[in-house]
Amino acid sequence: MVQRARVVVVGAGFAGLAATKELARSGALVTLVDRNPYATFQPLLYQVATAGMGTADVSFPIRTFAAKWPNVRARRTALSRILPDKRRVEFDDGGALDYDYLVLATGVTTNWLNVPGAPENALPIYSLGDAAGLRRRLQHYLEDTATGRRESTHVVVVGAGATGVETAGTLAELRRNTLPLTHPEVRPDQTSVTLVERFDYVLAPYKPRLRDAAAQALRKRGVNLRLGATVAGVEPDAVLLEDGTRLESDVTVWALGVTAPPEVAAWGLEQGKGGRIKVTDALNVPGHPEIFVVGDLAGAPHALPQLAQPAIQMGKHVGRQIAAMAKGGQPRPFSYRDPGIMATVGKAEAVLQLENGLTMRGLPAWLVWIFIHVAYLLGGRNRISVLLNFFWRYAGPHRSRASVTQ
Amino acid sequence: MVQRARVVVVGAGFAGLAATKELARSGALVTLVDRNPYATFQPLLYQVATAGMGTADVSFPIRTFAAKWPNVRARRTALSRILPDKRRVEFDDGGALDYDYLVLATGVTTNWLNVPGAPENALPIYSLGDAAGLRRRLQHYLEDTATGRRESTHVVVVGAGATGVETAGTLAELRRNTLPLTHPEVRPDQTSVTLVERFDYVLAPYKPRLRDAAAQALRKRGVNLRLGATVAGVEPDAVLLEDGTRLESDVTVWALGVTAPPEVAAWGLEQGKGGRIKVTDALNVPGHPEIFVVGDLAGAPHALPQLAQPAIQMGKHVGRQIAAMAKGGQPRPFSYRDPGIMATVGKAEAVLQLENGLTMRGLPAWLVWIFIHVAYLLGGRNRISVLLNFFWRYAGPHRSRASVTQ
Repeated sequence: MVQRARVVVVGAGFAGLAATKELARSGALVTLVDRNPYATFQPLLYQVATAGMGTADVSFPIRTFAAKWPNVRARRTALSRILPDKRRVEFDDGGALDYDYLVLATGVTTNWLNVPGAPENALPIYSLGDAAGLRRRLQHYLEDTATGRRESTHVVVVGAGATGVETAGTLAELRRNTLPLTHPEVRPDQTSVTLVERFDYVLAPYKPRLRDAAAQALRKRGVNLRLGATVAGVEPDAVLLEDGTRLESDVTVWALGVTAPPEVAAWGLEQGKGGRIKVTDALNVPGHPEIFVVGDLAGAPHALPQLAQPAIQMGKHVGRQIAAMAKGGQPRPFSYRDPGIMATVGKAEAVLQLENGLTMRGLPAWLVWIFIHVAYLLGGRNRISVLLNFFWRYAGPHRSRASVTQ
Repeated sequence: MVQRARVVVVGAGFAGLAATKELARSGALVTLVDRNPYATFQPLLYQVATAGMGTADVSFPIRTFAAKWPNVRARRTALSRILPDKRRVEFDDGGALDYDYLVLATGVTTNWLNVPGAPENALPIYSLGDAAGLRRRLQHYLEDTATGRRESTHVVVVGAGATGVETAGTLAELRRNTLPLTHPEVRPDQTSVTLVERFDYVLAPYKPRLRDAAAQALRKRGVNLRLGATVAGVEPDAVLLEDGTRLESDVTVWALGVTAPPEVAAWGLEQGKGGRIKVTDALNVPGHPEIFVVGDLAGAPHALPQLAQPAIQMGKHVGRQIAAMAKGGQPRPFSYRDPGIMATVGKAEAVLQLENGLTMRGLPAWLVWIFIHVAYLLGGRNRISVLLNFFWRYAGPHRSRASVTQ
């Protein structure tokens, strides 16, 4: 009888979940560890921040995921130490597990890029807690602006990647269409949405034509675009640019820069750029072929974008390699099949760029964007619920759509 | 030109919302005040506590509600003082409003009935925050039980009214059907669900036949029923009964007793039983016909059950009386048209009792229960979302339903 491989997967993001699924099917004994009881669907966090969806719509319980297979267990705790020679991991809660294979998939976190005042005064949008906190802040400030306790609720979003563009575009739509209904006491000059980007264009990974289309769509929605502007500091009520400009900002959203969290240093594995753990082209740690790193935390020889697709493919690949190694095989190099990239700006507006050069924008791209996010990436109850929320936000009864405050 | 009546409605529960809706249609200038930015659908809070629904499913933004009418404004704050002679109310945030008519609809809160240890060791299930807190506690304790940091997760529910029965029945179903999948490490003897009631039966307002049916349905689901048992004290890990019995309890749920919150005393209006504000049979304060009290806070001459129906009818009635008074009319007495009562025990099990004597139980009663709660009481996005959640919990894919942990 073959001994079943014991695998510990740390982190239940796209990479960790994909690895777990693959390993579960191979019959390995998997323990999926995460510090939260739920897995988060990060690409839709901006919808939570802008009150289009609830936290339960973009997350699901890890134990429910694990319950699909009898050979998968879930455990809520954080990794504190790796003992590679003993093939053992220790956790924050005092527990420990022995492994045959270890998969590290804990992801990265906000990088403040040493900008003074940013950690204190800006809000990231990286975790479910971040998104819910941003929503509460916006709601609270708008209420105070409506009742005269606060002068204004100006929002500055820093970083025009997909998250920054999606957040700014959606907030601008809410400001124009919803706010006059829900907060009639607030004058238009008391609110604004500004998007700051150090490049001269938004959405750097896209072709110039699509960047321009996205910028135009943002302007059309009333977003103040500050391109070619580098942030020099963040104060409680302002964002300072390097050219000396002071942008009024009651709420500063930090939508750029990710780095490995500080606790990774304690794991004793060699780190590279951005604190990522260095791995071979087969995604395992040099000298420890039984330790794999997948997702954003993987410092692979060829850098990959921090998106769901690379994470899913890495997780799947590693799951397969471990199944093969358990039968005596060797791990094979990972190669990324880029299916293309896409981002949405707001209602009926998105940009899409396939690897073969095909591009798409406007309503067709937006429908593809929704289809991919709902049909392909989500599952079960979330799928229906998210679809419902999209429908409601963009096609529901006009006045009932006015849900900026929750 | 007729001067439009200025009405301040304090509290956005069933009563306050019904009053606001009626007044909005009459053309009055209404300000709806609540301490929370959202209104809560209390009858489904037990679903939030037992992880069947998210907080966004059973609540909606008050400003979205108010946005339906141009003559309704919303304001997030709490009432601190009433100056009846000046016809003015003052708020916690330092603001104030002058009114022609005032509607008090702030509801009641948990009553610990002077049971020692109850406020410290038991969790109420009265607000959205209560329900979410109970869910987190259960999730946390089950996780600790699964990983050996905690011996057990025994739950004792105190009070077998509708909320107690619904909570105990649902938890027992989760314990039997879901827990073995999501927390396979937990042994059956490490968990239990007990329902304590001082009467010899559950659901006191119902006919004996229905009480017995509900009790039988609870037992069938594995609930330990302790009838005719009065709680003498609550400790961190136990509920003490008057006969000396000590029930192990890691999580004690307090599902009984409501009373006016202490701040009502500062409003200077005469209070009656349970701290409720005394009103005439027209629901206004003696000596101040322009001040109305509706919902659970109203100490009407004939006591009414603390349910959605009386609250909605009182709110509607008062809205109409104010509209009539603004045109020079006199307020008319309120009379309650009882449409009947119902409660659910779990999947395919409910009891229903109409005023005409008709009773119903089992699957038909359960379907009526869902229909009434979804079609009649809820609206818009929540309606579809709650229906979806019911479907998912009771008819979705078996293993995917295993969502006890979120």
